Amino acid sequence: MTKEEVRAVVLSKLRLTPESVLWDIGAGTGSVTVEAALLASEGSVWAVERDPEAVKLIEQNKAKFDCQNLQIICGDAPGALEGLPAPDRVFIGGSRGKLAEILGMIKDKLNPAGRVVADFVVLENLMEALQAMEGLGFKEIEVAQVTVTKTRLVGGKHMMQAQNPVFILSGAKGLRG
Amino acid sequence: MTKEEVRAVVLSKLRLTPESVLWDIGAGTGSVTVEAALLASEGSVWAVERDPEAVKLIEQNKAKFDCQNLQIICGDAPGALEGLPAPDRVFIGGSRGKLAEILGMIKDKLNPAGRVVADFVVLENLMEALQAMEGLGFKEIEVAQVTVTKTRLVGGKHMMQAQNPVFILSGAKGLRG
Amino acid sequence: MTKEEVRAVVLSKLRLTPESVLWDIGAGTGSVTVEAALLASEGSVWAVERDPEAVKLIEQNKAKFDCQNLQIICGDAPGALEGLPAPDRVFIGGSRGKLAEILGMIKDKLNPAGRVVADFVVLENLMEALQAMEGLGFKEIEVAQVTVTKTRLVGGKHMMQAQNPVFILSGAKGLRG
Amino acid sequence: MTKEEVRAVVLSKLRLTPESVLWDIGAGTGSVTVEAALLASEGSVWAVERDPEAVKLIEQNKAKFDCQNLQIICGDAPGALEGLPAPDRVFIGGSRGKLAEILGMIKDKLNPAGRVVADFVVLENLMEALQAMEGLGFKEIEVAQVTVTKTRLVGGKHMMQAQNPVFILSGAKGLRG
Repeated sequence: MTKEEVRAVVLSKLRLTPESVLWDIGAGTGSVTVEAALLASEGSVWAVERDPEAVKLIEQNKAKFDCQNLQIICGDAPGALEGLPAPDRVFIGGSRGKLAEILGMIKDKLNPAGRVVADFVVLENLMEALQAMEGLGFKEIEVAQVTVTKTRLVGGKHMMQAQNPVFILSGAKGLRG
Repeated sequence: MTKEEVRAVVLSKLRLTPESVLWDIGAGTGSVTVEAALLASEGSVWAVERDPEAVKLIEQNKAKFDCQNLQIICGDAPGALEGLPAPDRVFIGGSRGKLAEILGMIKDKLNPAGRVVADFVVLENLMEALQAMEGLGFKEIEVAQVTVTKTRLVGGKHMMQAQNPVFILSGAKGLRG
Repeated sequence: MTKEEVRAVVLSKLRLTPESVLWDIGAGTGSVTVEAALLASEGSVWAVERDPEAVKLIEQNKAKFDCQNLQIICGDAPGALEGLPAPDRVFIGGSRGKLAEILGMIKDKLNPAGRVVADFVVLENLMEALQAMEGLGFKEIEVAQVTVTKTRLVGGKHMMQAQNPVFILSGAKGLRG
Repeated sequence: MTKEEVRAVVLSKLRLTPESVLWDIGAGTGSVTVEAALLASEGSVWAVERDPEAVKLIEQNKAKFDCQNLQIICGDAPGALEGLPAPDRVFIGGSRGKLAEILGMIKDKLNPAGRVVADFVVLENLMEALQAMEGLGFKEIEVAQVTVTKTRLVGGKHMMQAQNPVFILSGAKGLRG
């Protein structure tokens, strides 16, 4: 699950507007999905997730927060992306294969002012996506590694406790809409 | 200036609602201020900043983003906070003195379900505020250190370049409203 | 146990010479102790540890690496430090109480060109020791936070996995010997 | 220049013995070189550096610390490595090209119990070397990212100030000597 702080940075980099159409590829348990659906309140969010157990959790969160603009597709990218409306924004949970292929399809379908954001904990996946985005001609490509350390109370004092760092890759289609 | 990623985490921890009344103490050039004003669209933001040059920049940003719910006070906390409406949320840019005194006043004035968030790059200031919040009986006290490293293109390759880590302290008044 | 990378930085900051007399306060299982004893081959290392189980492990490591210049004292600082020879170097494993009192005693006993290094995972302990060192007039006081992230193989790829960050505090008595 | 803390971790991972023969490829100004020469006191260090200005600095440091076991070669790897004695240890300052080619040559020449360590600030270079080491059959391959933040005194208080993180890659030839 994407932790609170990383989720905040991902959502910031997505720059969602109330009208955004978002593809959420590898939606997991839906922690980014639901927040995005609340922000894109007059747009739509298309969450693609291959794990049926995770899909159930997204459906529960959809009901809980009454996200009528959220569509959940149980399937795998890039196949499951066929037929979805052209996105303004794409988020890729990056623990997955076929990143280059998925990014190629996104580059084609993305609206002119569109943006893509992906997060990674695996070095090879980061580099595959980074090099694919460079090869495909994405603009404003940025890599940010975010490391969060929280404190835990031990005997009334604050002990530093690390969370795994996350790489956040983002880029723009680069055409003015 | 608070950088993009840290600003996103700060705003996430503030949990602003459209109706929130926010005190922004030490508003600086207004990077958090304006985003907060857009989020608290039916509430109000009270930005307190002692440096007249910085106040001018906040005023320019207020005009640029048409933030009619943003009030700018050129003055110093805690004095300049007298007479402001009771806040639901408080953000403190923590590079400052009198943190314990300011937090005491906030604890008194904060609405029952209110929250306070502060950021720090100086260890002594973090600890002064943390211990003041503990002494004042704030609830859900949390310290998160956020470290962001971005890449810079050097000869077409990505070099890792650090930003200074920031401590983000947050807490709740802890009473249900 | 102090992990390999942090241990390397601690030992570097101790600047041991073959003749050094080292107090190792809170020696734990002896991971820093034994490396220090090998470096101070013609000096001596005085390991103080209150936990008898940990003392047994240090004794095993002493035998394994044949450290005849290593003395192990089962006891608690500052009491257990009484009667030890004046040190050139002191290492404090900082997860402990009485830091100000221990540092006061160290300042008295430390040889003129002596140095002290301490490591911390608890914010309050770091600050207590830092402020004690400032108050006692230590020189060249330095705080370094060291964060190590290692990779773990997952499906043949490298996932980033965080270790808890450690603060390393160091200082010098500041008199030329 | 490799900073103190990263240098300490690099030297720890090299596991030099007094008899080690070390190749120091891309020696820069010689900060790792001289410390290594002092540790491998009965072995030898072969420092390869293409920049004549940097070579002059290494020569000054060699004279200052009287490192008679240090040989300095002004040239570029892999060409300049031809004819050097087979190493027990290799350190590669990783801001360079031809990493795969250099690692292939090292794998051939390295003594059976030999080890190689390299440091990187550029993601592509890290990945090129990591994948080359995997392809060449190195053992015990490890990636550690080391981030050091020091404090700076500002108005008598301690401000956190980041240094760029460094990736340290290490591996062993993996045969018992």
